[in-house]
Amino acid sequence: MSTTPETPPTLADIEAAAARILGDVVLTPTVAAPRIAAQLDLASLWLKLESQQFTGSFKDRGALNKLKSLSADEAKRGVIAMSAGNHAQGVAYHAKRLGIPATIVMPEGTPFTKAERTAVLGATVVLKGDTIDAAALHAREMAKTQNLTFVHPYDDALIVAGQGTIGLELLQQAPEFDVLVAPIGGGGLISGIATALKATRPEIEIFGVECQLYPSMHHAVHQLPPNNGGQTLADGIAVKSPGVLTRAIVERHVKDVLLVEEDAIENAINMLVEMQRLVSEGAGAAALAAIMAHPAHFSGKRVAAIVSGGNIDSRLLAQVLMRGLFRDGRVVTLRIEISDQPGVLAQVASLVGSTGGNIIEVHHQRMFFDLPAKRAEIDVVIETRNAQHVHEIISALEKAGFETRRLSSRSDDEGG
Amino acid sequence: MSTTPETPPTLADIEAAAARILGDVVLTPTVAAPRIAAQLDLASLWLKLESQQFTGSFKDRGALNKLKSLSADEAKRGVIAMSAGNHAQGVAYHAKRLGIPATIVMPEGTPFTKAERTAVLGATVVLKGDTIDAAALHAREMAKTQNLTFVHPYDDALIVAGQGTIGLELLQQAPEFDVLVAPIGGGGLISGIATALKATRPEIEIFGVECQLYPSMHHAVHQLPPNNGGQTLADGIAVKSPGVLTRAIVERHVKDVLLVEEDAIENAINMLVEMQRLVSEGAGAAALAAIMAHPAHFSGKRVAAIVSGGNIDSRLLAQVLMRGLFRDGRVVTLRIEISDQPGVLAQVASLVGSTGGNIIEVHHQRMFFDLPAKRAEIDVVIETRNAQHVHEIISALEKAGFETRRLSSRSDDEGG
Repeated sequence: MSTTPETPPTLADIEAAAARILGDVVLTPTVAAPRIAAQLDLASLWLKLESQQFTGSFKDRGALNKLKSLSADEAKRGVIAMSAGNHAQGVAYHAKRLGIPATIVMPEGTPFTKAERTAVLGATVVLKGDTIDAAALHAREMAKTQNLTFVHPYDDALIVAGQGTIGLELLQQAPEFDVLVAPIGGGGLISGIATALKATRPEIEIFGVECQLYPSMHHAVHQLPPNNGGQTLADGIAVKSPGVLTRAIVERHVKDVLLVEEDAIENAINMLVEMQRLVSEGAGAAALAAIMAHPAHFSGKRVAAIVSGGNIDSRLLAQVLMRGLFRDGRVVTLRIEISDQPGVLAQVASLVGSTGGNIIEVHHQRMFFDLPAKRAEIDVVIETRNAQHVHEIISALEKAGFETRRLSSRSDDEGG
Repeated sequence: MSTTPETPPTLADIEAAAARILGDVVLTPTVAAPRIAAQLDLASLWLKLESQQFTGSFKDRGALNKLKSLSADEAKRGVIAMSAGNHAQGVAYHAKRLGIPATIVMPEGTPFTKAERTAVLGATVVLKGDTIDAAALHAREMAKTQNLTFVHPYDDALIVAGQGTIGLELLQQAPEFDVLVAPIGGGGLISGIATALKATRPEIEIFGVECQLYPSMHHAVHQLPPNNGGQTLADGIAVKSPGVLTRAIVERHVKDVLLVEEDAIENAINMLVEMQRLVSEGAGAAALAAIMAHPAHFSGKRVAAIVSGGNIDSRLLAQVLMRGLFRDGRVVTLRIEISDQPGVLAQVASLVGSTGGNIIEVHHQRMFFDLPAKRAEIDVVIETRNAQHVHEIISALEKAGFETRRLSSRSDDEGG
């Protein structure tokens, strides 16, 4: 074996990984995204859809490469990993397929659905430790005491080589690109891809992406003190400490690590749904968010971006879609002051209808104490054509004597 | 030219179409959907993603094949089509690219956003006629008076041949399948694909899918009287009269036309999002809906399904996702009777929290007249693990003396 966890994988290691996992992971498609490319002023844009993997993320690749590299004895004893997310699912699914016992440690307080998702794939789930770090420590201890192989989510040459197979496929599927963008959590994904690409086409520029709230690799390579924390949409890349192995590869091959705000990630999820009909999780949309947020690096170029995963909760996705509509002024909430008399609601409804607005919800409030007793307020949620149309509706209402205030608008309320 | 609109296209015509449109339409991916296949008891499932076309549906193919087959003189005079949907966008986009003037007629009352979506692609949009039939008649008249070429959405051999290129790609991308399922609106899509497949692999079984509300091709081939109407999620296939040309091809090559209920279409949209991370419109999910609704035809087989388009409104998609969560009991609304006193809401919230339920909305009502004056009701929207968890929450509340009623549940309310 040429690879140990301490040595960066070579192109040959990645080619060996590709041969090892062939047929047992999805050869994910790379799709052209010409509408998004046009909107963002790119020469072209290719999206590599790791969201199409069985467990919904690229993690299947590294996990399977690691599992298939175990000795017969190691495989018999079993593996252990710490993750409540995509790594857990990748390890659990492929271990089960290969008949390898798998234990996954998650922090106590992990939502039941996350634990269940891994359990149904066939792993033993252990909830232990009140933080991610504590859970990881526990997993390491269990590995020792029970003689299990610990499967690190990123800081392992076999894991990195497995993720690197994406780079080999990309060179086949979309040979013409100048720049690659990939999200960074611990750094396994970008390290593998960068190794594959730089060995073959060293002129390709590679950018990593982290969310502003967890800029761990960015701060490490720029020698800034760590500064992580907060709730992010991109929980798949909310990692506090980058790998040692992966950091070395990033420092060698990655031009820069770009940071993206939560807003940009949310917009990118929306854009992938609306313009490319693809579902992605926050981390999966981070590369596109970076292209939008840092145009100087990408404008006019042929860009390839990794959509690393699609495991987003349906409720969160529905919320992101609705917030997008509110933000663009395509859905708006108006608070209208009316006299509390029969027929007034009908008058408001017909005024809104006459402008082409589509009322989707009405809330009637009589209880506000800042209004005289015979006055009332209604909140009307309206589907509109665009921001201009909102102004038309408001002025139609005001012209008819109804004092109207716009309640919902992220751009108005949050100044962005 | 061997093809006229009156003669069914041959395999050679489809191969000519493929050469003609090569590079100017997206060679859409065909993805393996192993999780859905396992859930539906299929040997395997391939999805051909026409949702990845530039305008979001397969219509680009036929439109471009037709436009590129015009004489120089015809191209100079321009084309006209009637559609407020995907056909309009396909014609508008490719006509603009080729410098061919395009007029699209839509019925009066077409939502502004639909008209705008076509106008921004470069076509002249004319709103005329109060029904689809009237608009079509107007388009035919304009074609005559202004000497424009009418581009029929399906009953034209060049359109059919263009859509048939999907069949050629599918044979390359997923050579091993026994059964193909595709939606039927006017029948252009399935006619083209069936012609390509049957010429090469006559043993493949082909099923068409229509929604129960618009079973026009089904009724035509089964010699039943037409019976169409209603609001469907699958507006892309809500077509009242199948083509003459396409009906002949369907009668020859299609084993049967399967009908699907609105519920099944909605479930299929959800399943594509949750299990395959793909956005599809109602018509785009119809093939999957048919696999679920008619398992006898598909169980144990290697199935290929066409995801014909992804043009679904974000608000509708958000609604479908939320309805799916309510249906599965993963989100529930409980109406809880409480005494109108300080601290009671906190008590309810902590009871729900202690069972692991996540409260996402609260509506407090003091105004219901079926309650004594000192009683009140609150409606609490809760995210839960599953239907069993809902029962746990309700019994925790009742045990503590709160009368609780479940309000939202499609399965309870609608008996399905």
